[in-house]
Amino acid sequence: MQIPGMATDILYAAAAIVGGDAMLTGEFTAPYCADKRGRYSGNALAVVFPSDTQQVAKIVRLCVANRIAIVPQGGNTSLCGGSVPLTEGRQIVLNLSRMKRIRTVDSVNYTMTVEAGCTLANVREAAEQNNRLFPLELTATLDYCEIGGNLSTNAGGNGVLRYGNARDLVLGLEVVLPDGRIWNGLRSLRKDNSGYDLKHLFIGAEGTLGIITAAVLKLFPRPQSSATACVAITDPEIAVRLLAHIRAICGDTLSAFEIISRSSLDIVLRHIPGTTEPFAKRYDYYLLVQSNDVLQRPLDDALRSAIQSFGADIPEFAVTTDADAAENWWKLRKNISDAQKRDGVSIKHDVSVPVSRVAEFIACADTAMHSAYPGVRIVAFGHMGDGNIHYNVSMPDAEQNKAFIAQQEGAVNRLVYQVVRELGGSISAEHGLGQLKRETIRAYKDPLELELMRSIKQTLDPQGLMNPGKVL
Amino acid sequence: MQIPGMATDILYAAAAIVGGDAMLTGEFTAPYCADKRGRYSGNALAVVFPSDTQQVAKIVRLCVANRIAIVPQGGNTSLCGGSVPLTEGRQIVLNLSRMKRIRTVDSVNYTMTVEAGCTLANVREAAEQNNRLFPLELTATLDYCEIGGNLSTNAGGNGVLRYGNARDLVLGLEVVLPDGRIWNGLRSLRKDNSGYDLKHLFIGAEGTLGIITAAVLKLFPRPQSSATACVAITDPEIAVRLLAHIRAICGDTLSAFEIISRSSLDIVLRHIPGTTEPFAKRYDYYLLVQSNDVLQRPLDDALRSAIQSFGADIPEFAVTTDADAAENWWKLRKNISDAQKRDGVSIKHDVSVPVSRVAEFIACADTAMHSAYPGVRIVAFGHMGDGNIHYNVSMPDAEQNKAFIAQQEGAVNRLVYQVVRELGGSISAEHGLGQLKRETIRAYKDPLELELMRSIKQTLDPQGLMNPGKVL
Repeated sequence: MQIPGMATDILYAAAAIVGGDAMLTGEFTAPYCADKRGRYSGNALAVVFPSDTQQVAKIVRLCVANRIAIVPQGGNTSLCGGSVPLTEGRQIVLNLSRMKRIRTVDSVNYTMTVEAGCTLANVREAAEQNNRLFPLELTATLDYCEIGGNLSTNAGGNGVLRYGNARDLVLGLEVVLPDGRIWNGLRSLRKDNSGYDLKHLFIGAEGTLGIITAAVLKLFPRPQSSATACVAITDPEIAVRLLAHIRAICGDTLSAFEIISRSSLDIVLRHIPGTTEPFAKRYDYYLLVQSNDVLQRPLDDALRSAIQSFGADIPEFAVTTDADAAENWWKLRKNISDAQKRDGVSIKHDVSVPVSRVAEFIACADTAMHSAYPGVRIVAFGHMGDGNIHYNVSMPDAEQNKAFIAQQEGAVNRLVYQVVRELGGSISAEHGLGQLKRETIRAYKDPLELELMRSIKQTLDPQGLMNPGKVL
Repeated sequence: MQIPGMATDILYAAAAIVGGDAMLTGEFTAPYCADKRGRYSGNALAVVFPSDTQQVAKIVRLCVANRIAIVPQGGNTSLCGGSVPLTEGRQIVLNLSRMKRIRTVDSVNYTMTVEAGCTLANVREAAEQNNRLFPLELTATLDYCEIGGNLSTNAGGNGVLRYGNARDLVLGLEVVLPDGRIWNGLRSLRKDNSGYDLKHLFIGAEGTLGIITAAVLKLFPRPQSSATACVAITDPEIAVRLLAHIRAICGDTLSAFEIISRSSLDIVLRHIPGTTEPFAKRYDYYLLVQSNDVLQRPLDDALRSAIQSFGADIPEFAVTTDADAAENWWKLRKNISDAQKRDGVSIKHDVSVPVSRVAEFIACADTAMHSAYPGVRIVAFGHMGDGNIHYNVSMPDAEQNKAFIAQQEGAVNRLVYQVVRELGGSISAEHGLGQLKRETIRAYKDPLELELMRSIKQTLDPQGLMNPGKVL
């Protein structure tokens, strides 16, 4: 074990808590010290795998007593370096993957109590086995990401338009506080006005205020009917108005409204086998609109007439209730990130603006990019229904692109974020801050709000041992 | 002006901020120093009526400089004494009723930005004028209560089953902090993971952490179709299973599931003109079940077949799509509180348990009451779909009831709250703590959670000037 001598006693104590077979040190920590994108890597004295909340609490108390920082980690799928240790090395990674019990499912109350280490796929399966839906849907990492991380980052994904963000799917939490005490807030109540709402402090805090060890999740009835539309448009401005129009007609049944730019579709068609143009003619933008319902009834007529009644701005669209046909369209959306990886690196942005201003965002950002970087390629797509656009910038030529990213990343970010700021948006819509945007956010967030965040951090974690170097 | 001499300068300064015609002192403060139920009354140096956020901030800074406590007040409809001053007199009531601007409505983003002093009725009307729905619905106080108070108390009401509590209807806040600085968190974003979620700290804090001066509210498409069922049952246990059954079939269209006990119905029939038995035969409990939908389509068949498919436990039920027929049923529910007032005082409880345990709660609480107080009358009703029961206890005979309430209120509360505790419930589901339950909550909430609440209070309001004597 290559460890600073003075830490040896601490590691033996940690091993005594979790068991020697539930701790890694030295070179064996490497897989847990780097993020999946290979963008961040650090060092850890050890990676510990507690099996229950008591062990988490004991590890935290051990670390507090020895002033060792703790990096809470789930599936380590953070896109912002939020779940990997820093480089200085005197940190312990507390990985919750062994805490994967589904503690209870109450299908009459439409709730389930799960431990932080359950993968999102496990949680969704357990709900389905009880004829219920847990609607959080992150297609890229479904099988690896863990619910503790989903809540700590307030994950978004494809279900947000109808069901809300991860935050909205929680009724109660169990949290190990920075001093090692356990807060049992595992209430499964729809209404509780008996004091300040503490759970919302820990949700989305990326492990900087405490460690979420378990949660009471809301469940929903399972949809029985579905209809999907693929809509070709020439301008995102049409999509903005179409969304409001469809929502006013289809109401709660509207469950997805995704936008795909021509360039996004092109790289998918280039890199993903079995994908095809949705229509014979090529268009600048495509929308994927999904309507589903618990009530058993055909939804395609309603969706079709909603789009038809919008008027002349829709050159072409199709509606299907066939699952395979819909999945063929969804492949075009769900594979964009994967296709981008194969296509090469890009400067990525996960931003949000009011839904009514998405078109302005794309127009202004495109103009800024093209005027500053002639020939630049923009891959814009995302959860238009939530005002959340993934806006990625690169140069078509690989060599040129290397230099572009090396020299221009900061400048590109500033141009894009300036547009976001002018439209009252957020520079991190669903991925969080982590290490990636920790510095950047200071230029875009009200200093008073940052001060309030720091004062809360100071109150709950005065020693600053919970996931330091992230968020704040 | 009858005021402690030493405060005179402060009052002149306050008048200079809001204008002499926007401040009351002496006897004129009385209407703002007592709650509507006449249960709480205190004294105030003055009641000030700021017209904008800047004036609120200036008043707060003036009070901080002179260590004068502030009682934020909206429509003063709190049922827990949360919006009236204490008796010691050295407090200023900051009434937000003049801040009633609808700042913006963005019907494409489905949001509106409103000031704290807008009545809930105003907010709902402004949404409707834009063909949108703001779903918070508090029938008793709709025209008086103000949105700032609705958010500060995380109000519940009739729409929660489908749309959530007030907390769930907010995207952004503007708050005057206890030091008089203004936090502008008026973001109208569906997704924003750029730091800790501060708005949820102020929502439901009953004005003890700051003063909500404006909010960005979520709007929804307006329902076009509706069906209502009145269902007779013999036992709440049937209602619990029926709710889960109907929800699995009707899904999001299920918008209300209210329970009315026989005794509740009896006092309504006795005191409210124009109310009649829903069925020829008398039953122990009744359910009001409402299904509505944005999509235009008949819902009555779905609701009827959902109830029929439940099986033999339903002795009698009826379904209607006729608005007047439905309203006649709703009169039986909406007039219970009013009928109770006319019938005399009672020991009231606003409690919640998991939806799956509502029947257990009613059964256990009834048993405890009847064994401790033979002949006692229990009026139980409420938002069963949220697990929220209003459980009111009194003696039928008026004289006997006076003595009962005078002598037994504490004992009755303890018996009811003990059942709530055993079922993992909350002793305040939707009314908050205010003064009424400030002491009581300490016996029912985890001391660690109370400690966390106090540490946050201490961090944001170190001088303890924001609505002291409430919540904590």
